[in-house]
Amino acid sequence: MANKEPEIITNKDQMRKWSRAMRSKGKTIGLVPTMGYLHEGHLSLIKEAHKHTNLVVVSIYVNPGQFSPTEDLSTYPSDLLGDISKLMAVPGGVDVVFNPQNLYDYGNDTNGENCGGGNGEREKSGDGVVSCVEERGLGHETWVRVERLEKNMCGKSRPVFFRGVATVVSKLFNIVDPDVAVFGKKDYQQWRIIQRMVRDLDFPIEVIGSEIVRDNDGLAMSSRNVYLSPEEREKALSINKSLLSAKSAAEKGLVDCRVLRDTVIQSTTEAGGRIDYAEIVEQESLEAVNEIRNPVVFCVAAWFGKVRLIDNMEINI
Amino acid sequence: MANKEPEIITNKDQMRKWSRAMRSKGKTIGLVPTMGYLHEGHLSLIKEAHKHTNLVVVSIYVNPGQFSPTEDLSTYPSDLLGDISKLMAVPGGVDVVFNPQNLYDYGNDTNGENCGGGNGEREKSGDGVVSCVEERGLGHETWVRVERLEKNMCGKSRPVFFRGVATVVSKLFNIVDPDVAVFGKKDYQQWRIIQRMVRDLDFPIEVIGSEIVRDNDGLAMSSRNVYLSPEEREKALSINKSLLSAKSAAEKGLVDCRVLRDTVIQSTTEAGGRIDYAEIVEQESLEAVNEIRNPVVFCVAAWFGKVRLIDNMEINI
Repeated sequence: MANKEPEIITNKDQMRKWSRAMRSKGKTIGLVPTMGYLHEGHLSLIKEAHKHTNLVVVSIYVNPGQFSPTEDLSTYPSDLLGDISKLMAVPGGVDVVFNPQNLYDYGNDTNGENCGGGNGEREKSGDGVVSCVEERGLGHETWVRVERLEKNMCGKSRPVFFRGVATVVSKLFNIVDPDVAVFGKKDYQQWRIIQRMVRDLDFPIEVIGSEIVRDNDGLAMSSRNVYLSPEEREKALSINKSLLSAKSAAEKGLVDCRVLRDTVIQSTTEAGGRIDYAEIVEQESLEAVNEIRNPVVFCVAAWFGKVRLIDNMEINI
Repeated sequence: MANKEPEIITNKDQMRKWSRAMRSKGKTIGLVPTMGYLHEGHLSLIKEAHKHTNLVVVSIYVNPGQFSPTEDLSTYPSDLLGDISKLMAVPGGVDVVFNPQNLYDYGNDTNGENCGGGNGEREKSGDGVVSCVEERGLGHETWVRVERLEKNMCGKSRPVFFRGVATVVSKLFNIVDPDVAVFGKKDYQQWRIIQRMVRDLDFPIEVIGSEIVRDNDGLAMSSRNVYLSPEEREKALSINKSLLSAKSAAEKGLVDCRVLRDTVIQSTTEAGGRIDYAEIVEQESLEAVNEIRNPVVFCVAAWFGKVRLIDNMEINI
């Protein structure tokens, strides 16, 4: 089913102008921030947004601020035309695709993107964190940090990641001015960090977490799945399977987190994955627990070949 | 001359509602953030705001997030009724005084203010920075940092200060949603940090720097001046006097910053002050220069008795 064609906006000021015009007509705006290369998971976020607001903006922007110089910024997959046709097929479509060129270009000599181009000397922040937009002179230097939530799990192996996410989402919030923003629970820690940031900085925005979408075989949808060989994909199913077993065991009374974690680590490792972390944490504070007494979420990150995947499962007992 | 009485709003949601209502009527809003105990310097900011917007909101909030536990949060002067009568005397008055109780109270057990009360264990952030609102559990943990500009000058002796200022100003921007915000150039580094933050996070707000207001004797207006004894006040005049001499010397061709700085340090020290810093820096990057070749600002902080004062002078050659 072909739907309405979205308006493509690439300029910050025009995006803001559109939002102000819609707002003055009494419309509410939902924002779904993405890095493009859309899959069913993203489309489910858009369907969720439609439940809450009159209009839906999807941003497509691969944010250099959340990649470290050693990560896969330059090879991150993209397919704008494919994305737009997928968006047109979503019931209700989307009203705007916000697709800026460079959100860190402020019209100085330094243009705000250091990875891939190989130019520019990068400066480290106080604690040695460096992303693809650190610069000297008058370049970007403001970062939003959710200091405790950003530390564990994905924050350990990707020290620039959540700082970059919180910062670019702040920028998108200030440009698009949405009433509601929808994030996927697949990126559980990211969702909780944005929720906390919105509370702590008093953004007038409701943050909604939308359920994980899985392929028929159980693999959580991710733009990075495209890099898995068929064999690696088969191996990667071990994460979801072992998380399901852990959930079922917990519901039957096995609440010792060490045992549960060891089982998931062992299954994933035996399947050929390399575990980055497997943590059972409280759903809001993301603090690790030893025994499941309240609702928790079991979060896993693991490498299959050169692909790092994350998945998680809420256990509500 | 008694003017219109401002509406006093203490609640975030009500503040936001007011702004939305005014905005829907096509009104523009100016914000003057203050910590109260208003003097002529603050009032000049309000006059400046009136030049740019239809409506003016003054926030009065002593922000615990910018004080370290050893600083003067609990003794910071306040006089709300006095402030309101001063605001009524400003030509055009002000439309709203936003006077929240606690901007870090999110309805958890921990209420977001640790200094003065003596309760609560504070957590340090990654680089050991601690303010009066660091907490465990579900307390405030999101901080906005302008990483280079916050480092030198006042940032050296007050490591939590600019992080707290940038964060509370972000909160105020999100609550009040102004078109224009006015800051005093007396707090030069603060003004530049907010300007940079607004650019880097894409706040749709114009930040205006308003000129320093001085008493007849030349002392820059500050809420902390009230703590100076008459003798200390006399000594404190040395800052402005020596800055004026430095400016005049620079304009006559003395552009060696070491000489200029030494002169100011010597004069202030001889007068009985204890220099915290005396820096000649570029006006936008705030990077120290050795020779004055472009517009700079000469920034000084010094203690007189128990009072720390700051002052500065732009030298536009």
